[in-house]
Amino acid sequence: MDRISELVERRKILGPAYRLFYNEPFYPVRSEDVWLFDDQGRRFLDAYNNVPIVGHGNPNVVKALSEQAATLCTHTRYLHHLILDYAEQLLSYFPSDLDRLMLTCTGSEANDLAIRIAQAATNGQGIVVTRNAYHGVSHLLAQLSPSLAPVSNFVRVIDPPKTDSNFELEKERLGREVRNAFADLMAHNIQPCALLLDTIFASDGIYPAMKGVLDDAVTATHAAGALVIIDEVQTGFARLGSDWWGFKSVGVEPDIVTMGKPMGNGYPIAGVVTKDELLQVFAEKGRYFNTFGGNPVAVAVGMAVLNELESQHLPQHVDDMGSYLENAFKEQLSSLGIVEIRGKGLYWGLEIAATSEETADVRARRVVNRVRDAGVLLNYCGPESNVLKIRPPLTFQAEHADLLVSALVEALSH
Amino acid sequence: MDRISELVERRKILGPAYRLFYNEPFYPVRSEDVWLFDDQGRRFLDAYNNVPIVGHGNPNVVKALSEQAATLCTHTRYLHHLILDYAEQLLSYFPSDLDRLMLTCTGSEANDLAIRIAQAATNGQGIVVTRNAYHGVSHLLAQLSPSLAPVSNFVRVIDPPKTDSNFELEKERLGREVRNAFADLMAHNIQPCALLLDTIFASDGIYPAMKGVLDDAVTATHAAGALVIIDEVQTGFARLGSDWWGFKSVGVEPDIVTMGKPMGNGYPIAGVVTKDELLQVFAEKGRYFNTFGGNPVAVAVGMAVLNELESQHLPQHVDDMGSYLENAFKEQLSSLGIVEIRGKGLYWGLEIAATSEETADVRARRVVNRVRDAGVLLNYCGPESNVLKIRPPLTFQAEHADLLVSALVEALSH
Repeated sequence: MDRISELVERRKILGPAYRLFYNEPFYPVRSEDVWLFDDQGRRFLDAYNNVPIVGHGNPNVVKALSEQAATLCTHTRYLHHLILDYAEQLLSYFPSDLDRLMLTCTGSEANDLAIRIAQAATNGQGIVVTRNAYHGVSHLLAQLSPSLAPVSNFVRVIDPPKTDSNFELEKERLGREVRNAFADLMAHNIQPCALLLDTIFASDGIYPAMKGVLDDAVTATHAAGALVIIDEVQTGFARLGSDWWGFKSVGVEPDIVTMGKPMGNGYPIAGVVTKDELLQVFAEKGRYFNTFGGNPVAVAVGMAVLNELESQHLPQHVDDMGSYLENAFKEQLSSLGIVEIRGKGLYWGLEIAATSEETADVRARRVVNRVRDAGVLLNYCGPESNVLKIRPPLTFQAEHADLLVSALVEALSH
Repeated sequence: MDRISELVERRKILGPAYRLFYNEPFYPVRSEDVWLFDDQGRRFLDAYNNVPIVGHGNPNVVKALSEQAATLCTHTRYLHHLILDYAEQLLSYFPSDLDRLMLTCTGSEANDLAIRIAQAATNGQGIVVTRNAYHGVSHLLAQLSPSLAPVSNFVRVIDPPKTDSNFELEKERLGREVRNAFADLMAHNIQPCALLLDTIFASDGIYPAMKGVLDDAVTATHAAGALVIIDEVQTGFARLGSDWWGFKSVGVEPDIVTMGKPMGNGYPIAGVVTKDELLQVFAEKGRYFNTFGGNPVAVAVGMAVLNELESQHLPQHVDDMGSYLENAFKEQLSSLGIVEIRGKGLYWGLEIAATSEETADVRARRVVNRVRDAGVLLNYCGPESNVLKIRPPLTFQAEHADLLVSALVEALSH
C-alpha cells in the first residue's frame, strides 16, 4: 500500500462524514507564503485557501502567537488590554454605528451568535438566505444552509443577485423576493428575524453584487422589522480589496456583521460586530462567555494579522491583483469554454461550460484535478458544481497569477 | 481614573453581555505553571482555571504550537499524518467500541455536533439534562442549559445525583426520573434523542457521582431508544484522576463523549468521540467540515498535552493530590461553616453554610473575594451560588494546596 492509500485507510478513524479534495488526495507537510509542499517535496501554488490571508506561516503572525502563548492565555472574565486594543483597531475599519465586538472561535459560532442576538432584538425567528447559501455547521446554521441540507420551516430562500442582469430590475426583484419571503413567514406565524447574506454569494456560485443592488432588499428587511446580518466570514479582511468588507463594496449598512476564517491567519478566532443597542436585550436574557474566544493569544494573533495587512499594503495590492487577474482571465480563458468570469479582488469564480464530451460539472472537476497535478491548488463550487473557485492568500503576486492562468489554459484546452 | 477603572471603561466596546470576576477585576499579564501575575507584578495562585491543565505557558506545548504554526496549518480536506497520530493516541484512552474522533474548536461545537449525531441516529429530538446544567453557548445548547435560561419544549430536567443519599434509592430515583422524562417527551410527540450529562454535575453544584449510580438512568435511556452523551468538557483529560474520564469513574458506557477546554491547554481544540455505526446516518444526511477543527497546529498541540500528561504522570498525581486536598479540607475547614465538601481528583466544591450575619451566597462571594485579595484564585457555582469551585491546573502540588487551604481558613474564619 502506498503512503497516500495508507493515510486514507487510517483516516477511517475520523468517521464517514469528512471529505477529501481531489482524485488523488493532497498531503501537504510544509508551507511558505503562497506555497504548500507535499511529503515528496513537490511545490504547489495555493490559489484556493482563504484562511492564510497574509501568507502561510507568516513569520510575524507566528512570532505574535508564540510569544503570547508563552506569556499568558486566560479568558474574558479577567481584564486584559490586548482584547481592547484589538477591538478598538478592528472597529476602526467599520462605520461608526457598528461599535461593539464580541469574539468567538469560529465563523459558525459567530453566525450562530449573530442570530441569537437578532432573535433577542426582534423577538422573531424567521430568516431569509440565498438559495444555495452556506453559513456554518452548528445545529441552527445547518438548518439555514441550503447547500448542506433542506432548510427548516423558519427559513425562506431567495435567488442571489446575478451579474448579467439589468441593475434596476435586479434591485427590484431582490426587494420583492425579500418582501415576499418575510410576508410568507408572517403568514405562517413566524415573525421576521433577519436577512442573512454573504456579499459575494460564494456557495451560490460567486456573484459579486453590484453596488446598490441590495438596497431594496435591505429596505424590505427593515420594513418587516428584521435585521440585516452580513456574513463576512469569507469576504472580510480585504479579500475583495481596499473596501475591506463586502458590505462596503455593495453599499449596504448592516445591523450585524460576522467574520472568521482569515481573522487569525489559521488560529481559530472569529467575531460579531454590531451596535450596542442591539445587544441590550440579548444581555438582559443572559450572559455570554466563550472559553477561548478573545483570549490574549487569539487577539495578539488577530492584531498581528491586521498589522501585516497594513504594513504590506495588502488591501491596495488586492485591488491591483484583482484587475490583473480579471484581465488575464478575460484575455486568456474567454475562448476556452467559459460561460462567465466573475469576481472581485482575490475571490474569483470561473463558470465552466459543458462541451460535447463533458457536462460542465464533470469538466470542472477534471480541470481542478488536472490543475492540481500541474501544481496549482483550486476547487469548484456552486449549486451545479461547475464554477472554479479561486481565493489565494492576499500575498499572491503577478508571477503567481501567471502560473495559475497558464495552468488553467492548459487544463481548459484539453 | 486608575488603570483598572480605565480598562473597565474601555471594555464597553465588548458590549453588555460579558461578565468580569471579582469585586476588583483581575488583570493578569503573565503566567507560569500554577501562577498568574498581575500588572503590578503580584503573584496569584491559580486554583480555578481548568483549561491550562499542564500548567500555564507549558514550554513543551508552546514549542509544539510554535513549530507547527511555522510549518503548516491547513485543514481536514487535505491529508495529514498528525491528525491520525493524535486520533489513534486519544482513542487509546477510550473503551474499544468508541472508535471514532471528530474535531471541533470549542466544547460548545462538540456538544452541538454530538446532538446532531444523536438526532440523526435516533430520529428523535428530546433531550434530558440535569436541573442546573450548562452544556454550551450555541443556539441549540442555550436551549438545554437551564443554568443560562429556561429550557425549550424538547428538553426535560432531572435532579443530579446527590452524594449524601442512599445509593440504591438514588440509583432507582435517577432511573425513574429519566424514564418519566422520556415518557413525558413522547406524550408530547417528541421522540427521545439523548440523555446529556457531565459526570461531576458541575453547574449543579459539583456532585461527583458514585460508581454505578447512573446505571438505571442509562438503562432507561436506551430503553427509550435514546443515546447517552457524556459531556467531559470539564472532567476529561484526568481532571478527576487516573481514570482519565468521568464516565469511567462513574461506570457508564457512553454512546458519545464530548471534550474540550483542557484538550489544547488553551489552544481552541475540542472533539466528539463516538462509534462508527452512529455516524453513518449523520454522514448520509450531509458532510461535516470545520475550518479550523483538527488542523495540524491543533492536533500537534493536543498531542503535546497528552505527552505532558503522560511524561509528568499527572493522572496518578491527580489521584494523590485529590486525597491530599480532601484530607486538608476535612481537617481544616469542616468546623468553619461548611455544609459539605465534595469532589474528586482536582475538582472540588465546598458548599458554604449561611451564618447569623450572612446568607450562604453572600458569604461564598465574600470568601472568593477575600481569598483573591490574599493571592489565591477560585470562584463559586451552583444553583444557589454557594459552592466554592476549585479546579487548579493538574500540576498543582502539596505546597500549593497548603497555600490554598490556609487562605480558605483565613477567609472562612472572618
